[in-house]
Amino acid sequence: MNKKSDSRRWFLKTGLALTGILSFNNVLIAKEKKDMKKNMFIHHVYFWLKNPGNKEDFTKLVDGLEALSKVGTIKMCHIGKPADTNRDVIDRSYAVSWMCIFENSADQESYQKDPIHLKFVADCSSLWSKVVVYDSIDA
Amino acid sequence: MNKKSDSRRWFLKTGLALTGILSFNNVLIAKEKKDMKKNMFIHHVYFWLKNPGNKEDFTKLVDGLEALSKVGTIKMCHIGKPADTNRDVIDRSYAVSWMCIFENSADQESYQKDPIHLKFVADCSSLWSKVVVYDSIDA
Repeated sequence: MNKKSDSRRWFLKTGLALTGILSFNNVLIAKEKKDMKKNMFIHHVYFWLKNPGNKEDFTKLVDGLEALSKVGTIKMCHIGKPADTNRDVIDRSYAVSWMCIFENSADQESYQKDPIHLKFVADCSSLWSKVVVYDSIDA
Repeated sequence: MNKKSDSRRWFLKTGLALTGILSFNNVLIAKEKKDMKKNMFIHHVYFWLKNPGNKEDFTKLVDGLEALSKVGTIKMCHIGKPADTNRDVIDRSYAVSWMCIFENSADQESYQKDPIHLKFVADCSSLWSKVVVYDSIDA
């Protein structure tokens, strides 16, 4: 790891420090002035349904993701749907967003093989026509 | 708000409660058994550079995002690049990922008009050839 990437991670710390202690949803985010041992791995999945607009299929997929959220290596997750924003650059054609944060790449690999994840795919993959995944690590 | 969407938000709370108190990067995430007043708004932007692989342009964009992170309504953010994962469903063609969490839609709208954001666009928009944005709220 070079100095530049250290600097990037410190930035994240500093950025959050500016906000003090926050509470949003059920999450308390507190700044911490020590411990920068871990990287962040963001796994963001967008699903398009075979039957767009079908409420039953939407609910089945969201229920499946609720079950999926129990995978132990997930540090934070969010089940979303498109917001009302609607500019040219915004893709709001998907049905469901699934954002997961892991501590590192190994935890994300473990999640892929977790029996809960395999059951989710077996139970729900018939619902979607398209999936796009973006996996990101610290720049 | 119907019972179902209440249930969704409670799920998020419960899901996080399972994890106890976590520390990753500089962030302490603690479960909180009360207060579910706020929704989560996830604004995730993917940038493709005009000069893919150009380290100088990559650094300029990341520097710009570091400056952008100072916008007050941002509750959590991450500057990323593609991870090493490489399955069929994964799009790893982008150069930089910018994930922001806001407490609500109004805060995201405020961010769009913030002078820091306008300066970021003025300074950095010449660097990218394509931007895709996914805005998500609670499903």
